[in-house]
Amino acid sequence: MSPTSQYASVHVRRDHAHLKWSKNIEPVLTVSPGETVTFDAVDSSNGQLGKTSETSIIPSVDFSLVNPVFGPVYVRDAQPGDVLKVEVLDLETADWGWSAIIPGFGLLADEFTDPALNIWSLDKEKGYTLFKDNICVPMRPFLGCMGVAPASDDELSTVPPTVGGGNMDCRELSVGSVVYLPVQATGALFSCGDGHAAQGHGEVCGSAIETPLKATLRFEVCKNQPWVTSPQYQIPPGAQPQVIPDRGQYATMGIDSDLLEATKKALRNLIQWLVATKGLNRNEAYILASVVADLHIAEAVNMPNYEVAMSIPLGIFA
Amino acid sequence: MSPTSQYASVHVRRDHAHLKWSKNIEPVLTVSPGETVTFDAVDSSNGQLGKTSETSIIPSVDFSLVNPVFGPVYVRDAQPGDVLKVEVLDLETADWGWSAIIPGFGLLADEFTDPALNIWSLDKEKGYTLFKDNICVPMRPFLGCMGVAPASDDELSTVPPTVGGGNMDCRELSVGSVVYLPVQATGALFSCGDGHAAQGHGEVCGSAIETPLKATLRFEVCKNQPWVTSPQYQIPPGAQPQVIPDRGQYATMGIDSDLLEATKKALRNLIQWLVATKGLNRNEAYILASVVADLHIAEAVNMPNYEVAMSIPLGIFA
Repeated sequence: MSPTSQYASVHVRRDHAHLKWSKNIEPVLTVSPGETVTFDAVDSSNGQLGKTSETSIIPSVDFSLVNPVFGPVYVRDAQPGDVLKVEVLDLETADWGWSAIIPGFGLLADEFTDPALNIWSLDKEKGYTLFKDNICVPMRPFLGCMGVAPASDDELSTVPPTVGGGNMDCRELSVGSVVYLPVQATGALFSCGDGHAAQGHGEVCGSAIETPLKATLRFEVCKNQPWVTSPQYQIPPGAQPQVIPDRGQYATMGIDSDLLEATKKALRNLIQWLVATKGLNRNEAYILASVVADLHIAEAVNMPNYEVAMSIPLGIFA
Repeated sequence: MSPTSQYASVHVRRDHAHLKWSKNIEPVLTVSPGETVTFDAVDSSNGQLGKTSETSIIPSVDFSLVNPVFGPVYVRDAQPGDVLKVEVLDLETADWGWSAIIPGFGLLADEFTDPALNIWSLDKEKGYTLFKDNICVPMRPFLGCMGVAPASDDELSTVPPTVGGGNMDCRELSVGSVVYLPVQATGALFSCGDGHAAQGHGEVCGSAIETPLKATLRFEVCKNQPWVTSPQYQIPPGAQPQVIPDRGQYATMGIDSDLLEATKKALRNLIQWLVATKGLNRNEAYILASVVADLHIAEAVNMPNYEVAMSIPLGIFA
């Protein structure tokens, strides 16, 4: 049984979705510092994809509806210049998720022009999910999107992250982590969404294992932390549970005078390795890299060349 | 006692230094696949800095002499198109190291214009070294530089990494790791150097804990691995020994429409956090970030904004 019920005092529901960051959206509830809220978030397709969806549906997805966030929650005492501390207490995925290659989206959008879709079966008890029957992807759920409303009257897209957080897609923000968001508007006006069951650093194909997610979060307001001018976070000890055997990592490098091109090269090289040695096709390799492989900047100083490494745990392979 | 002596069959000495990658440099020795070589590498300053050096020496360092590599080693049977497999069997640092802010060098060169130098005392038995008495940096030695000669007759600088490896400065290449380098010239003509006792992903200030290093490496030649077109590597299980307590990590984010600027922002924010909460001055924070904090690309797809995270282990702080 999930501990959600024991924490939840107030709830944000699925119909509390909105598609813009704006301080002019009416709060759906007001909480005091120290209070806990449970959010019931639809997946990032906003319900357009489901557990029986097939690839053919991808071209008809309406992108004006994607990446809904749920809220906003007004936090008493939160003023511009303060910091909203958000503790991730509990996360509960649905029993399914999806990952897709969506034409025009993703780090290698120019090279992957055909849509692809993978539907995942998620067994929360096991803590991992299978890809192609012989590849075991560990689950580590998190909210791709947690943010506060902007200071201005602008209505901002929920797709790019900003100084107030939002679509950070940072895989470290799982249970036990704490994120610090600089408050921009009175009351913070916090919303979240974009449930992920697993993702690598980079989210390279443009999607993680996207899933509806129930999230329980606790809010505090911190004064006098002027160094938090964009999102910061803390990860607890032992944050990465070992649900797959530790067989080390394999990594590819991308080296280029342009950091973004170095990043793309590292990814291309990992895809090439997955195709050559693991029997995946290119689309499968791209999706697998997105949900389980990590982009690191190995060196950013040996000019004129940057070097990015992309690593994948070898324990995922049967 | 170091296991070096039991592995070493042939040696590359300190006077086998060279300062360019070139296939026209005469090999200092020839080995067969399967053979093991010990390299005795001077530090990346090429002996210009020592354990009693002070900051005032930095402006007089001769940069035409830095980043020497040691070799080259001709590997029998290694042909262009093959892959040189290099196993890192043993690494032994000196009892000291240095880290510096060198004007004009480093990710924030425009913002850190004054030289700084930190001399580290390295106790191999302990596995960590102290910074400012109350910060404990775990040691994880590796060769910043491992590479093969280029295919052309060019003489290339040893500073930037290339498809043949070289100054990769990849902190994962410690004992037990294996690096795969695409052979460019007949015999591979492998050299290495740039000993590091510790470094974070990014090497942001431009130096790691630089140290003379004795390295024992074993070479193999792999045929038919056409997917290795630039360096790739494998990390063994349990590669990161826990010599400091696991107290989780703290991380800052940099968010920007330019990936390089996002990277700089993540670093600036970490420096700001270290100064505000750990009592370091800015130069100290920059150096500490370089030797122990890691740059990750959290998301590379939520256009128009990239997000880079820089994380630091909390167990380093007393």
